[in-house]
Amino acid sequence: MEIGFLGLGIMGKAMAMNLLKHGFKVTVWNRTLSKCDELVEHGASVSETPAQVIKKCKYTIAMLSDPSAALSVVFDKDGVLEQICEGKGYIDMSTVDAETSLKINQAITGKGGRFVEGPVSGSKKPAEDGQLIILAAGDKSLFDESIPAFDVLGKKSFYLGQVGNGAKMKLVVNMVMGSMMNAFSEGLVLADKSGLSSDTLLDILDLGAMTNPMFKGKGPAMNKSSYPPAFPLKHQQKDMRLALALGDENAVSMPVAAAANEAFKKARSMGLGDLDFSAVIEAVKFSKE
Amino acid sequence: MEIGFLGLGIMGKAMAMNLLKHGFKVTVWNRTLSKCDELVEHGASVSETPAQVIKKCKYTIAMLSDPSAALSVVFDKDGVLEQICEGKGYIDMSTVDAETSLKINQAITGKGGRFVEGPVSGSKKPAEDGQLIILAAGDKSLFDESIPAFDVLGKKSFYLGQVGNGAKMKLVVNMVMGSMMNAFSEGLVLADKSGLSSDTLLDILDLGAMTNPMFKGKGPAMNKSSYPPAFPLKHQQKDMRLALALGDENAVSMPVAAAANEAFKKARSMGLGDLDFSAVIEAVKFSKE
Amino acid sequence: MEIGFLGLGIMGKAMAMNLLKHGFKVTVWNRTLSKCDELVEHGASVSETPAQVIKKCKYTIAMLSDPSAALSVVFDKDGVLEQICEGKGYIDMSTVDAETSLKINQAITGKGGRFVEGPVSGSKKPAEDGQLIILAAGDKSLFDESIPAFDVLGKKSFYLGQVGNGAKMKLVVNMVMGSMMNAFSEGLVLADKSGLSSDTLLDILDLGAMTNPMFKGKGPAMNKSSYPPAFPLKHQQKDMRLALALGDENAVSMPVAAAANEAFKKARSMGLGDLDFSAVIEAVKFSKE
Amino acid sequence: MEIGFLGLGIMGKAMAMNLLKHGFKVTVWNRTLSKCDELVEHGASVSETPAQVIKKCKYTIAMLSDPSAALSVVFDKDGVLEQICEGKGYIDMSTVDAETSLKINQAITGKGGRFVEGPVSGSKKPAEDGQLIILAAGDKSLFDESIPAFDVLGKKSFYLGQVGNGAKMKLVVNMVMGSMMNAFSEGLVLADKSGLSSDTLLDILDLGAMTNPMFKGKGPAMNKSSYPPAFPLKHQQKDMRLALALGDENAVSMPVAAAANEAFKKARSMGLGDLDFSAVIEAVKFSKE
Repeated sequence: MEIGFLGLGIMGKAMAMNLLKHGFKVTVWNRTLSKCDELVEHGASVSETPAQVIKKCKYTIAMLSDPSAALSVVFDKDGVLEQICEGKGYIDMSTVDAETSLKINQAITGKGGRFVEGPVSGSKKPAEDGQLIILAAGDKSLFDESIPAFDVLGKKSFYLGQVGNGAKMKLVVNMVMGSMMNAFSEGLVLADKSGLSSDTLLDILDLGAMTNPMFKGKGPAMNKSSYPPAFPLKHQQKDMRLALALGDENAVSMPVAAAANEAFKKARSMGLGDLDFSAVIEAVKFSKE
Repeated sequence: MEIGFLGLGIMGKAMAMNLLKHGFKVTVWNRTLSKCDELVEHGASVSETPAQVIKKCKYTIAMLSDPSAALSVVFDKDGVLEQICEGKGYIDMSTVDAETSLKINQAITGKGGRFVEGPVSGSKKPAEDGQLIILAAGDKSLFDESIPAFDVLGKKSFYLGQVGNGAKMKLVVNMVMGSMMNAFSEGLVLADKSGLSSDTLLDILDLGAMTNPMFKGKGPAMNKSSYPPAFPLKHQQKDMRLALALGDENAVSMPVAAAANEAFKKARSMGLGDLDFSAVIEAVKFSKE
Repeated sequence: MEIGFLGLGIMGKAMAMNLLKHGFKVTVWNRTLSKCDELVEHGASVSETPAQVIKKCKYTIAMLSDPSAALSVVFDKDGVLEQICEGKGYIDMSTVDAETSLKINQAITGKGGRFVEGPVSGSKKPAEDGQLIILAAGDKSLFDESIPAFDVLGKKSFYLGQVGNGAKMKLVVNMVMGSMMNAFSEGLVLADKSGLSSDTLLDILDLGAMTNPMFKGKGPAMNKSSYPPAFPLKHQQKDMRLALALGDENAVSMPVAAAANEAFKKARSMGLGDLDFSAVIEAVKFSKE
Repeated sequence: MEIGFLGLGIMGKAMAMNLLKHGFKVTVWNRTLSKCDELVEHGASVSETPAQVIKKCKYTIAMLSDPSAALSVVFDKDGVLEQICEGKGYIDMSTVDAETSLKINQAITGKGGRFVEGPVSGSKKPAEDGQLIILAAGDKSLFDESIPAFDVLGKKSFYLGQVGNGAKMKLVVNMVMGSMMNAFSEGLVLADKSGLSSDTLLDILDLGAMTNPMFKGKGPAMNKSSYPPAFPLKHQQKDMRLALALGDENAVSMPVAAAANEAFKKARSMGLGDLDFSAVIEAVKFSKE
């Protein structure tokens, strides 16, 4: 199976490498072409524009940094739209909002192409290990044909229906994550200020019905006031805001998520936006005494 | 090792049975004495009053239903206080507030006895399986001597320092649990009202960094609006309130826990207090359309 | 002083009438021209398009129903832009968001015209009585020249600086109003459920440091579960959302407004969006007993 | 009419003085007897114990600093209980919780006396001006007989039914006040951080439907970060907590009050507990930039 791949950032590079290792023929493109070198050493071909990748490959995956990059690769000169046509499939796995996805979908299908959005849950390590969770939506036949690739990239792929649902599902997941992180932070601070050991609290939580990889992974660092950015707080807060907006559209009242969102905003106002989202504990901790 | 055991409710019976099975000599007492029969079949002795149990045994464990029962067994006629003395240890594993624990501690130590509070995390099944988590505090030498029994009753026991810390730690744990349950409920409802499948959300959460036994265990039933009471909502709400009061004492602002507490109160006002605390999702779901 | 007036809805008609009564020469336009008749009886001239009004008058005031109407009157065929030019001033008193205001400002000033935004605080009655509060921003010289008109339309006009500030200030005011309404609602329900008279609470509040026209005006109806729509709940909730978004831009954490916003959303989900915003008390009241 | 008066703090002294000025015969007592001197100059008699005041007067008013003082004056040696009997009335206008009131009521009525609780809304200035608001509850006949005195002390007295209702009503009022103060604070900070003038916001609010003496009185100082303690923040937060507890008892969910309470707790943790409760704006303002 031959696959085009647009975007070789941290995530994209790891994903394209996995495809190569599993026997796919891969043609890559990146805005900075030199980033393609390592992939070429492992057998990838290179094209000079997104349009050329599309022309060459029946299926093309994109993994770009943000909505504006995702739009640019499609709509700019030498972009995807110039060559997309009936018989070709475009799978955008970037994290974008539903509106961006819908705009790309409309353009692609307007030219006769097929489109799937497939944002992922998981960051660098799961990308390298082929352990992503893929939240796909859009053209069902293209989704089905993409499964051999998805099976290499992720441990599980979900088909969620119409375009936009992938983006929405990701917001829901991240909203639960953000509220849980606040619950956890309040617990750690309450323990500490009540004369209990917050490290012991970690041990106790780890043995009970709430044990989860996030608490285990981030808790010890949080107790040392260390927040190396795996998922920046400002991005988490943006996702909380967008999830609340999704609730607003659908008249869902979510007071706990709203309180969590305000805590993330307070943390942003304290200059913590670029740290890991676990730094929200600093907003809970803050006192003068 | 010979151990007295006061209180043979669901939890106490399972715990006393475990001690018997692991070779401890156990003398039991229960307000309704007939409840002792099954234990006797497995080799337990019976005493007719708490005082007699204390007189007979160097170590006595209590597992009573609530603070008033815990106080009554100690302070009433024929109670623990009548026989407690130097050389004897009393271990109360009931779930009580810090004030109750401190009152019992003062009375026991006033007579020369030693006292440990040891509330547990875990309900019927972990009690039967000897998989409780024990949050002990109080006399360190008594704690150390109790470890052979604790090792049979639980998978892990923690020593948390002065009396009251066991009760406090349990509140912190339950507060995190209550906020997490709200985060989870809001996510399930948001998914559903946004045209996504809340069952698929369960599958996605289960594969990611937030996967935990509580979500796995309760999620499918919640999606079917089923809330068989493992931990009643009104008790969860009471623990949220007490945890917030603990925060109040120590000037810890916890806006997410406070929002979760109000959601539990709304659920109570909807007549859901006796269902499982996962029924808080009904307060999130509620709408008229 | 000759003034053009675009838009004769409930507010616009009352405002144009006040200008006529105070001796201004007024040229009116409305999409449905028949609505101009009553004004003509009182001495107004009529033009057939916004462009003709602009051509005729040095100053033109607009009072339109929403952002899309405000944009349409400026940018559509026969619109304001076709005739605006150096020496002319355009004062838009519609309630629009800052973005809409900025877009209109850019177009007007691009043609050499001057622009002031001037959203008002106050509804039908104050408009009729010339008792509006005008939150103006934009071209200072145009603001100064508009004062004779503003003095007729309102009891006070504020100059708030650059375009967008009028819209923002209105959001801040409405946010305070929405949170206050929730505080009031919670108090009334708490009194009632605690066995106190919520009517007596009104009397007590009215005598103290919190007495205000809103509590006095709406309280008695709220205690009778009556919510005739003066300001619809769905619009209040939209303004809360936009105020929270303004806070988000500027990293201001506002947990009380966020909680109030979620209460308004709950009320919306209960089908109360078209009632007065005081109907949020129904979300507080809701219980099953 | 002859009246006993116990407690000559800031409030009590002003109240007793008003009674004297209006022709009542007043017999005073204060723990520090020298505080009685000024009253004596104006015609008061002095007794050496609360019991003697009760013995001498048919009606006795108490205005004490807190619940423990209120209890002490009744139950201690030489206290009210020693002389209270049929035919005598005791009116406690101190601010105490419902439990304290109920305890005093039970003791007084157990001796055949009559009891009214009458906490007041208003502080030093209204006390001096006889402009307090009296929230009375308890024995209706005693209330009726007290009206001549209440008319001197306050601008209005309410009869709220059974003992405890006075204390509860005061909590409801103070809860509304605390949430309003948070709404106001968030608005002032949002204005400021959005590039608007928070002084102008005061002017705008003052002209609209939300205008109230509290915003007018405290706003200008808040904009100067000045919080001279009229009602200390820690007391306001305590009243919020007790109001929330009252809601808890009656299953009333109050998310806005809960969010306001957490903001007051954050302010306490910042060391602002002894300042005026308007200092909660500092918790909203807090950021690092």
